[in-house]
Amino acid sequence: MKTIIWEDNKLLLLDQRKLPDEVTYFECKNHKDVVYAIKNMVVRGAPAIGVAAAFGVALAQINGEDINKAAKEIKNTRPTAINLFWAVDRVVNSDSPIDEALKIYKEDVETNKKIGKHGSKLIEDGDVILTHCNAGALACVDYGTALGVIRAAKEEGKNIEVICTETRPLGQGARLSTWEMQQEGINVKLIVDSAAGYLMQKKYIDKVIIGADRVAKGGVINKIGSLMIALSANRYNVPFYVAAPTSTFDEESNVNEIEIEERNPKEVLYYGKCRIAPKNVDVINPAFDIVPSDLITKIITEKGLVDPL
Amino acid sequence: MKTIIWEDNKLLLLDQRKLPDEVTYFECKNHKDVVYAIKNMVVRGAPAIGVAAAFGVALAQINGEDINKAAKEIKNTRPTAINLFWAVDRVVNSDSPIDEALKIYKEDVETNKKIGKHGSKLIEDGDVILTHCNAGALACVDYGTALGVIRAAKEEGKNIEVICTETRPLGQGARLSTWEMQQEGINVKLIVDSAAGYLMQKKYIDKVIIGADRVAKGGVINKIGSLMIALSANRYNVPFYVAAPTSTFDEESNVNEIEIEERNPKEVLYYGKCRIAPKNVDVINPAFDIVPSDLITKIITEKGLVDPL
Repeated sequence: MKTIIWEDNKLLLLDQRKLPDEVTYFECKNHKDVVYAIKNMVVRGAPAIGVAAAFGVALAQINGEDINKAAKEIKNTRPTAINLFWAVDRVVNSDSPIDEALKIYKEDVETNKKIGKHGSKLIEDGDVILTHCNAGALACVDYGTALGVIRAAKEEGKNIEVICTETRPLGQGARLSTWEMQQEGINVKLIVDSAAGYLMQKKYIDKVIIGADRVAKGGVINKIGSLMIALSANRYNVPFYVAAPTSTFDEESNVNEIEIEERNPKEVLYYGKCRIAPKNVDVINPAFDIVPSDLITKIITEKGLVDPL
Repeated sequence: MKTIIWEDNKLLLLDQRKLPDEVTYFECKNHKDVVYAIKNMVVRGAPAIGVAAAFGVALAQINGEDINKAAKEIKNTRPTAINLFWAVDRVVNSDSPIDEALKIYKEDVETNKKIGKHGSKLIEDGDVILTHCNAGALACVDYGTALGVIRAAKEEGKNIEVICTETRPLGQGARLSTWEMQQEGINVKLIVDSAAGYLMQKKYIDKVIIGADRVAKGGVINKIGSLMIALSANRYNVPFYVAAPTSTFDEESNVNEIEIEERNPKEVLYYGKCRIAPKNVDVINPAFDIVPSDLITKIITEKGLVDPL
């Protein structure tokens, strides 16, 4: 089941708000549908957002809209993941938006397989690997970045166990990553976000591999909670890897200058339909945090292992 | 509204599984009701567990049961919080179980008010204080330990803001602590557990105050997630306090030897009625973790500030 499908001049996006219980596609006929889909996290995950955005610009051109205006609206959907801006710029600056979008689409899987290959060299048979959020096939066109490394290790015959943190508020670890691992027949266990440190203290975890929304000077931005996991890994000498394509790198910016998206309080006050706190409690809901470079062992890119910036 | 009421030879326990939306009392007529209530977290929080356990032994004696057998059953409910064992032993070894239970009940509030007084000296006007789980009135007979410090600071006229971590899986921070703060008119905000480190990185948090289930040699055992918060506080130079009565101290044991309770996977797989992951995912659900002593600034007891063991 593909995360993103381009068919008959329409973009079909697997609706990730409804996974794992419902598998439905959200249809985008124009760029405004894509804007909605990205804002509301029908599609999420930095690489997937980039690919969807690329097709959004292509749709604008196909529909005879002003593609610069469309590009601006698409870029305004979510501020933190750099792949969005990178992909939109590539398409706007190309000779043929739809061809460029299709190139970006195709490159994504090739890139992820290379990341998988480089990363798999780090994995030993019997490793227990902790991951956060969903940096899997669902965060990309296919295969995944952090989960791509895990898939590659399994393809090479290594026995591994994956620990997925739930990833409140939206549960990408609980709903999406555990599901992907089950589909692949990879041994997986779910924990609440708060239990990651304890498992490392008990020497249960061999490695941590996460994805990234942006690699900048001084650190890596990823799903909220990544920082606390990195601090635990540092304390208990657990190697901490970030798997990310070079399109996620922003070598110009300082990581502390990047806007960290804050999202609707309802995401915290509710879990699906269930309210989990008194009705009118104030909430702070940052979607990402910053892992300082000194806490990162290596970054696994399609070109090989590199140091953080 | 009282957490625990003794009336007409019955123990009434505020049913904390249903808060904040429903305020109902669970009635215990015999020690087996108390065993059920503790196991299923009708009553929870180390001091409250101790008080309930004390009355459980008293009920066994009132009902003409074998109090040593009852004491054993009560002690088997939950392995980690030491107050349970301390309270049961005091009652079993006393001349009059019901009188001893009533003494423990009365001492709890007096103790918490002293903890509040000592702890409040650490709080400055304008402080933003982060707390985890519920170490409030609901974790005790009344007033609370960590939240008692906050109540005392407010009574002294200090303006404070409290940040409550949700505390998955059972949401004691989201459901109970925010509610207590709202009742007191104290400025409170809710965050997911994963956001604590980020707020400290952004210098939003002035102090952390948590409760404890056991203070032992080498560290403090508290609700799962406490370790990760302590590591964040350490990284960002945020003072990290534990508020606990001396009845929580276990000076004989090494903290790494204490049994960390693991609870039913359903607590993680569901949030109330909402399932949050694929049905058959394996889960690891430790209820507590260990904060090593080097990460703790001071412990606030009813006798004053002491160093961790």
